[in-house]
Amino acid sequence: MTEPFVERRIADLGLSLPEVAPTHEFLAVKVVGDLCYISGHAPYRDGGFHFQGKVGADLDVETGRRAAELATLGCLASLRAAVGDLDAVDTVVKVNGYVNCAPSFGDLPTVTDAASSLLIAVFGESGRHARTTVGVASLPSNVAVEVEMTVRLK
Amino acid sequence: MTEPFVERRIADLGLSLPEVAPTHEFLAVKVVGDLCYISGHAPYRDGGFHFQGKVGADLDVETGRRAAELATLGCLASLRAAVGDLDAVDTVVKVNGYVNCAPSFGDLPTVTDAASSLLIAVFGESGRHARTTVGVASLPSNVAVEVEMTVRLK
Amino acid sequence: MTEPFVERRIADLGLSLPEVAPTHEFLAVKVVGDLCYISGHAPYRDGGFHFQGKVGADLDVETGRRAAELATLGCLASLRAAVGDLDAVDTVVKVNGYVNCAPSFGDLPTVTDAASSLLIAVFGESGRHARTTVGVASLPSNVAVEVEMTVRLK
Repeated sequence: MTEPFVERRIADLGLSLPEVAPTHEFLAVKVVGDLCYISGHAPYRDGGFHFQGKVGADLDVETGRRAAELATLGCLASLRAAVGDLDAVDTVVKVNGYVNCAPSFGDLPTVTDAASSLLIAVFGESGRHARTTVGVASLPSNVAVEVEMTVRLK
Repeated sequence: MTEPFVERRIADLGLSLPEVAPTHEFLAVKVVGDLCYISGHAPYRDGGFHFQGKVGADLDVETGRRAAELATLGCLASLRAAVGDLDAVDTVVKVNGYVNCAPSFGDLPTVTDAASSLLIAVFGESGRHARTTVGVASLPSNVAVEVEMTVRLK
Repeated sequence: MTEPFVERRIADLGLSLPEVAPTHEFLAVKVVGDLCYISGHAPYRDGGFHFQGKVGADLDVETGRRAAELATLGCLASLRAAVGDLDAVDTVVKVNGYVNCAPSFGDLPTVTDAASSLLIAVFGESGRHARTTVGVASLPSNVAVEVEMTVRLK
């Protein structure tokens, strides 16, 4: 039995998966055939939300990027819990990044690039995905970024 | 021939499906293989939109929850019209809830929980789904909530 | 070998595909099986973004419609680049239209109808799709509209 490859890469990046965040009346991940629909995840670790506020008003772009990264790690933590092993991922299909921002803030892709770069660093070429980034009026618990994903299993 | 089970549950909850809302240049439901992509639905019944305004400013959370519930019933009404019978649903895959809200409003999941709870009450365990909730700047006709869904057929 | 049919229709409408816009850390289109997930596209042509500002504040509805049309053409340009030929499209599954707007603007479907009408004009009945329209707080580079799509190949 081989060591988990994807988790090793995450550790090599100096990162770690957070615990799975509590969900309300929904599943963190719904598996349908070989597709995993991962719910929108907020930046969550150690029992609480992090990076709260609006990018471009309360928070700068770099902080928004850290929020996007943690939300992405949260997606992966939930995915691991749902399917047992991140090495089961064949490819990342789609990422939707929602940035809680001031109406005047337009540098949104720089924020969600942090999510995309992380996925490519972790999954390699198969981590490349389609993506939509929008700036929203508010997010649950006023977090800076919410990340939603669809991945295909091997 | 058996009585429709899902519609019976809806009635037992004291609820009823609204009529199908008029669509602009799109379909209320697109069926592709065994997946049904249900368009974003506003709270609509008896020929008009209901629950107009922003949650956290014009409307309270409980009113937002009623809006989410009616929008969800609208999704199911369109689905019934598209596939003939709600008992054809195998599982609810994904729900996206868009809440028209003040930028300071963060209690968004409580609003969309009304959609999720209804789906679980109606479809049972197979009604559990992945979900994304975001707060948006505006919605068509200034309704409080819009609900979009993907379901898989048996 | 026959002349591309869909591109002919686009030309007959007096329209043309823009060049493919540069992407950040993501793919313009991800093809998974027979489904193409097309990233959120901004109105882009001749090396720059067009129709910048908020509909209902800086821009009127008609300008929003032109933005939606150009963003849709951008989706098709990326799709052609990804799969080689727009005649490979079997059906348009789903469109999500994000309108950058003032919080008081509610006439959102009129804006995204321009995207839907174009798809139906170009692909015929198989261009009919499910759709979700929401008004967002901001979009990348402050463009007026972003359009995201899923299509199925033949």
